[in-house]
Amino acid sequence: MADDFRRRPRRRGSALEDAILDAVVDILQECGYGELTFEAVAQRAGAGKASIYRRWTTRVELAHAAAHRILGVEAGPPDTGSLRGDLKAWIRLTADLLTGPVGQALRGAATEVLGHIASDTGRPTTLSRGWYASQIDVILERARQRGEDVVEPTDLVRSTPGTLLRFHFLAHGAPISDAVIDSIVDEVAIPLLVRSPACRHGPPTT
Amino acid sequence: MADDFRRRPRRRGSALEDAILDAVVDILQECGYGELTFEAVAQRAGAGKASIYRRWTTRVELAHAAAHRILGVEAGPPDTGSLRGDLKAWIRLTADLLTGPVGQALRGAATEVLGHIASDTGRPTTLSRGWYASQIDVILERARQRGEDVVEPTDLVRSTPGTLLRFHFLAHGAPISDAVIDSIVDEVAIPLLVRSPACRHGPPTT
Repeated sequence: MADDFRRRPRRRGSALEDAILDAVVDILQECGYGELTFEAVAQRAGAGKASIYRRWTTRVELAHAAAHRILGVEAGPPDTGSLRGDLKAWIRLTADLLTGPVGQALRGAATEVLGHIASDTGRPTTLSRGWYASQIDVILERARQRGEDVVEPTDLVRSTPGTLLRFHFLAHGAPISDAVIDSIVDEVAIPLLVRSPACRHGPPTT
Repeated sequence: MADDFRRRPRRRGSALEDAILDAVVDILQECGYGELTFEAVAQRAGAGKASIYRRWTTRVELAHAAAHRILGVEAGPPDTGSLRGDLKAWIRLTADLLTGPVGQALRGAATEVLGHIASDTGRPTTLSRGWYASQIDVILERARQRGEDVVEPTDLVRSTPGTLLRFHFLAHGAPISDAVIDSIVDEVAIPLLVRSPACRHGPPTT
């Protein structure tokens, strides 16, 4: 009985959520961020506007939710056998997704957020820093289990690779070249995340 | 004769440029980015629109030029006697300027640029990465002259502290707390810019 009570509404809620976010993705893909309205999403998902507003109160939130759903499903960090390989594969995958509706969502949401932040309020926004940081945690935990000597990063360090990727995307658009990704990983992420290997093994051979 | 030919128009050009950029700053400060038009600037500067268009073809360029002029004049990196101190003092100074017309200019220009980049063109934009990188060069050169053991950073590393500051500003607005600046310097800039001190002096004492 408790089982039935909990499972059924949750499944309905989740199915409805899927339909709403699918509609958001379709609209972003076919029409772009400019056409992303609660009306359009409700109509396309066959849902009431109230059921959307209950979950997401702005279209920035709606766009981020749709982007994160795609990122979560498609861009879990691949396991390549090394920290450096995992970082590059994950950033490559994420960068590729930025050419599609995820990129539309992030660019549209960023533009809207920028237009609305007063320079003196310090109001925090949801530019999805948390998602990038959590993916770094997955990659680091895997590296620890392999025996790689990685740091316990601060919040800023955890989010820095994602910030550099997003900043590049926002400033230069997609596609993002392998050279950019290699730089982010080799020049910034690895030096910040790996515990000074030179100190453990002697100076690097040159 | 060659002297006269070169000096006079150049001085007139520079005075005109000053008047134009002063007008841009005034408009940003009093009215905001939304009111920054070539008409308004021309009127305020007592200049012809053509003389503005000859130098800057979009208001994004105009806003950046005005921002950089203020940054160049007011935010040269202070000399505090250490790399860490110089980085913190310079970022603090830059962050403070973001509360004024510089911030208005950067936010407005970023919003406009974001709204216009098609996700498939890869068109580069001018989000002032070069200025931040060049300030890092000044700070590093000073550190080398003091005998601090700093790296020869790549372009990405040179621009990373500025990128983190700007991303924070764009996502969260101003004012920017000392804690944010300390994190950027202590957790990211110093580890990337200083040549593994632990290797030179033995492990850090804890």
